[in-house]
Amino acid sequence: MISGRCAACKYLRRRCASDCIFSPFFPSNNPQRFAIVHRIYGASNVAKFLHQLPLHLRPEAAESLFFEAKCRIEDPVYGCVGIISQLQHQLHVAETQLAKTRAEIAFLASNLQEAQPHDFAAQPIQGPNTIGFSQIGLSTPAHWFNS
Amino acid sequence: MISGRCAACKYLRRRCASDCIFSPFFPSNNPQRFAIVHRIYGASNVAKFLHQLPLHLRPEAAESLFFEAKCRIEDPVYGCVGIISQLQHQLHVAETQLAKTRAEIAFLASNLQEAQPHDFAAQPIQGPNTIGFSQIGLSTPAHWFNS
Repeated sequence: MISGRCAACKYLRRRCASDCIFSPFFPSNNPQRFAIVHRIYGASNVAKFLHQLPLHLRPEAAESLFFEAKCRIEDPVYGCVGIISQLQHQLHVAETQLAKTRAEIAFLASNLQEAQPHDFAAQPIQGPNTIGFSQIGLSTPAHWFNS
Repeated sequence: MISGRCAACKYLRRRCASDCIFSPFFPSNNPQRFAIVHRIYGASNVAKFLHQLPLHLRPEAAESLFFEAKCRIEDPVYGCVGIISQLQHQLHVAETQLAKTRAEIAFLASNLQEAQPHDFAAQPIQGPNTIGFSQIGLSTPAHWFNS
């Protein structure tokens, strides 16, 4: 059966109006995409979220809602927050690694300065710039790191 | 009025049964916590998500649902995904910084080896270990980095 209805209207077995809120973001050739957001938020909530936004922001919002819903289905305990914890852990590892490397550079530079005082006196060697990891200010509870 | 009902049952104006699914995670002294998850997922979806999990996993699930819902209210376009993009960007910066630093160490070590061949011949200086950023395998669409 050929149908001009979007995936959401097909799923909800209703007519797809020309100004359907779902139609631009849930095409009929990808029924799974709507099924996933519907399962997590419910159709009326998704419609409400999209309606609240100006037109140009809706595609990104639909995409991020789909991503979060998919994460929640794949990981019913942590959802997207599992990825956040994993990334925060990776950042912690990177920060530690950078601190270690900076210390290594300082050690090498001081050895080199002793060995070649004239060549390096005018070119002080600096460690890498500090990356402001702490600036991100995430409010994820600390215990998620330990789970 | 003193009431033994949890925040969810108060919000939904219903009796709070002794086996209420919400009661352990949405205490009456924090009505906002339930209001937030209700606004994003709806009460019946939250109940469904919790019911599907074994008892010991429900506290973490309630916490991550609350966190995600709060993120969606604070950032209706990107929600939690905004944090993921931000962290991924920070990781990219850190990876670049580490590569630069490793090159700097290699340069210093080779200069030092030339200057002090006998001291350093037996102690090869290595760059820091590579951090497996690519191992995280996130499926966030690449265009979120540019937004």
